[in-house]
Amino acid sequence: MEFKFEIEKRLDGTLGRAGTIHTPHGDIQTPAFIPVGTKATVKSLTVEQVKDLGAQAVLANTYHLYLEPGEDRVAKHGGFAKMMGWNGPTFTDSGGFQVFSLGAAYGEGVSKVATTEVLAAKIAESRDGEKVPRETKVKIDEEGVDFQSVIDGSWHRFTPERSMQIQHSLGADIFFAFDECTSPLAPYEYQKKAIDRTHRWAKRSLSEHTLLGVSHATGAQQALFGVVQGGSFEDLRRESARTLGAMDFDGYGIGGSFTKSDIGTAVRWVSEELPEDKPRHLLGIGEPIDFFYGVESGVDTFDCVTPTRVARNGAAYTVDGRINLHNAQYVDDMLPIDPEIKNYTSSFTRSYIAHLLRSNEMLAATLISIHNLHFVVSLVANIRQHVLNGTYFDYKRSFLKRYYKSVDYRILS
Amino acid sequence: MEFKFEIEKRLDGTLGRAGTIHTPHGDIQTPAFIPVGTKATVKSLTVEQVKDLGAQAVLANTYHLYLEPGEDRVAKHGGFAKMMGWNGPTFTDSGGFQVFSLGAAYGEGVSKVATTEVLAAKIAESRDGEKVPRETKVKIDEEGVDFQSVIDGSWHRFTPERSMQIQHSLGADIFFAFDECTSPLAPYEYQKKAIDRTHRWAKRSLSEHTLLGVSHATGAQQALFGVVQGGSFEDLRRESARTLGAMDFDGYGIGGSFTKSDIGTAVRWVSEELPEDKPRHLLGIGEPIDFFYGVESGVDTFDCVTPTRVARNGAAYTVDGRINLHNAQYVDDMLPIDPEIKNYTSSFTRSYIAHLLRSNEMLAATLISIHNLHFVVSLVANIRQHVLNGTYFDYKRSFLKRYYKSVDYRILS
Repeated sequence: MEFKFEIEKRLDGTLGRAGTIHTPHGDIQTPAFIPVGTKATVKSLTVEQVKDLGAQAVLANTYHLYLEPGEDRVAKHGGFAKMMGWNGPTFTDSGGFQVFSLGAAYGEGVSKVATTEVLAAKIAESRDGEKVPRETKVKIDEEGVDFQSVIDGSWHRFTPERSMQIQHSLGADIFFAFDECTSPLAPYEYQKKAIDRTHRWAKRSLSEHTLLGVSHATGAQQALFGVVQGGSFEDLRRESARTLGAMDFDGYGIGGSFTKSDIGTAVRWVSEELPEDKPRHLLGIGEPIDFFYGVESGVDTFDCVTPTRVARNGAAYTVDGRINLHNAQYVDDMLPIDPEIKNYTSSFTRSYIAHLLRSNEMLAATLISIHNLHFVVSLVANIRQHVLNGTYFDYKRSFLKRYYKSVDYRILS
Repeated sequence: MEFKFEIEKRLDGTLGRAGTIHTPHGDIQTPAFIPVGTKATVKSLTVEQVKDLGAQAVLANTYHLYLEPGEDRVAKHGGFAKMMGWNGPTFTDSGGFQVFSLGAAYGEGVSKVATTEVLAAKIAESRDGEKVPRETKVKIDEEGVDFQSVIDGSWHRFTPERSMQIQHSLGADIFFAFDECTSPLAPYEYQKKAIDRTHRWAKRSLSEHTLLGVSHATGAQQALFGVVQGGSFEDLRRESARTLGAMDFDGYGIGGSFTKSDIGTAVRWVSEELPEDKPRHLLGIGEPIDFFYGVESGVDTFDCVTPTRVARNGAAYTVDGRINLHNAQYVDDMLPIDPEIKNYTSSFTRSYIAHLLRSNEMLAATLISIHNLHFVVSLVANIRQHVLNGTYFDYKRSFLKRYYKSVDYRILS
C-alpha cells in the first residue's frame, strides 16, 4: 500500500476533518494521537501494551536514535519499527527540534537566545525527565547545524541531507523535513530569516529524499512532510505554509512552540494556507484541550510525550481532570484510576498504584502510562467518532465541562 | 480445593521427587521455581507477563508489605494476590529473614554479629538494588523481635503471633512460621539457642494460626509451613527438622544461608528427617546449579530474587552461562538473548536490548526479567519432566556441562 490520505467527513464551520492516512504498514484513522517512542521504546511499555491501548502508530526521535544506538544499527534491524517489534505505521521527527531545544543557539543573530518558560517546558519534555543532559551548544549556518551530543558533549552536524539519510535509515512511514526550530522569544527579523532558511532546507530535504528513493532499511516508500514554522507571527506562519504548501510534500508538520490560544490562531492560519488534501501533523502538543482546538484548526495527527512523562511522576488523566496518585488521599482509595474508563488498569485500585509509586516500583509507571496513553488516544478517537456522527460540539462541551470545570476557551487559556 | 501434596514419582538414589501441591487457588506442579513479588509486584512485570513466562505461583515478602502499604490495606483488597491481580497460588515468607538480615542483631549473646560475605550478598538481594536501606537494629527476646523499619527507622515488633496475624491479612495460600534467622557465622552455642527459640516460636505460630482460622482477607484456608534452621551444623539441622517434623505443619521451609556445598549436605540432612509426605520449600536460593542439588536433596519449591535483580543490571541467563548485555560485544549482536530458547524476548536482538540498557530505558529490565524468570522457571520445570521421564541425570549432565563448562560438583562449588 502506498501513502495516501482520504478525507471522510468535515467538521462544519471549522477546518476540521476525519479521514484515513494509508501507509505501507497500515492505516491511521484520523484525527489520531500518536504515542512517542523516543528511543524506539514507548517508555515502560511493551509494543503489545501500546497496541492494546489503541495506538495506531508510534513516533520516534531522529536525534536520539542517531546518537544511540546510531542509524546504521537501526538500519541493520530493518528500521526502528522492526527493531522494537512494532508492526504498524511509524513516524520520525526531523531532529531539528531536539538540536535546537537541547542546545543554546548562538551565531548568526541568535546569540544566546533566552530560554523562555515555554521552551524550558518543552525541553523538559524532550528530556523525558530521565537524564539531565549537559548544557550543549548549537551553531547554525546556511548549510546546516553543528551541535553537541547530550550524551557525551561530542560535536555532530546535521544538514537537511543528513537528516534525510538518517531518517531513511530509521525507516518510518512518515518523516519530516529538516527545519530550524526557533525560540518563541526570537524577534520578527530572526523568525523571518529562520523560515526563509527552513524553506531552503525543505527544498533540499525533498531533493535528497527523491535521490535516496525507498528506505534502504525497510524497502518501503516513505512519505515526507514539510515543517511549517513562523512563531506567533501571522504573516510569517501564512507565508511559511504557502511556500511549503507549493512544494511536493506528502503532508505537513506544524512546528514551534504554542500556547493554548496559539492553537486556535497560529495553527488555523497555517491550515488555511496548506493544501487541503494533505494530512497535517501538530508536533509535540498533547494537553486534552489542545486536541479539540487542534482538530478544529485542521490538525489530523498529534504526538506528545506528556502522557507518559507525567505518568512516571504519578499524574493520571481522568474525565474529571488530572489527579496525582502520589497524594495522600489515594493511599486508601479503592477505586480504579478512572472509574468511568475501562482499560487494562481498571482492575487495579488507586491504593495499589499509590503503594507502587511510594515503593518506587516500575509497574507504577507502566500502569499509569498505559492509562494516560489510552486516555488521550481514546479522546482523539472519540473526537473523530463525534466528527463522523455530527455530534462533535456536544461532545466537546461535555468533555471540557467535566475535565476543566469550564467550557470557556478564554478561561482555559 | 483444600491444601494437599501428592508425590507422583521419585528420583532413584536421591531424596528427589516430582509431585503436585494443591492449593485453594490452583495447583503447583513440583519441583517448581516461584518468582518473588516482594511488594506485591514482580519487579517491572505485569501479572500477565509473569503468567505467560510459565510461573505457577508468586511469593511476596511479609516484612515489606507490613511496612508498605500495611496489612490492613492489603486485607481490604482481599489479600495481596487480589491486590496485584494474580489469580494463582501464592506464598508469603514469615518476615524473619528480613527482620534479621536487614538489621544488625544484638542483645542476648548475638551482640553485633559480623556481617559475612554470604549474608551481605543476601542483604543486597533483599534490598533489590532499589533503595539502600538505612542501618537498622534488631533486639531479640523470648517473646519476639523489636526492629527498625528500613523506610523510616521507626521501631516495630514482630512476635510469632503478629507474623501469623499479618500473614492472615496478606492471605497467601502457603505461609511460614516466624523463625529466628541467624548469621551463618554465629557459633554453635548461639545456633542451638536460636533453633530452640525457633521451635518454641513454631508452636506459638501453629496455635495462633489455629486460633485465627481461615484468612479473613480471602476467606480461604491457608497452609502453614514450619521453618527449619540450624546453620551448617548437622546435629542442629537434624534436630530442628525432627522437632518441627513432629508438629502439625502442612509443609516445611528450609531457611538460613547456604553455600553450594551446603545444598548437597545441610538440605539433605533436613529432608532425611522431615516427614516425606509434606512439601519442602528452600527459601531464597536460585542459581541454576542450586536447583539440581536442591531437587536431589528433596526440595519441592524454590524462590529467589536473583533472576530479576541481576536482570535489572543487564545480566541474562543462557544455556551457555550468564552474559551481561551491558558489555560492548552485544552492541552489534543481532541474536536474541538466547538463540536456543523460545520466549517473549526471542524477537528482540541483544543489540536492541543493549541499546535500551545504555539508554536507561525501563523496557530493558522488563525484557531481561521476563527472559531470566522464564529461564529458571523452565529449568525447574524441565528438571521435573526429566524426573518423571527417568532421564534426570542425563539432563543434569548436559545442562551443567554447557552452563558451567563443568559437571564436576567440586569444581562448581
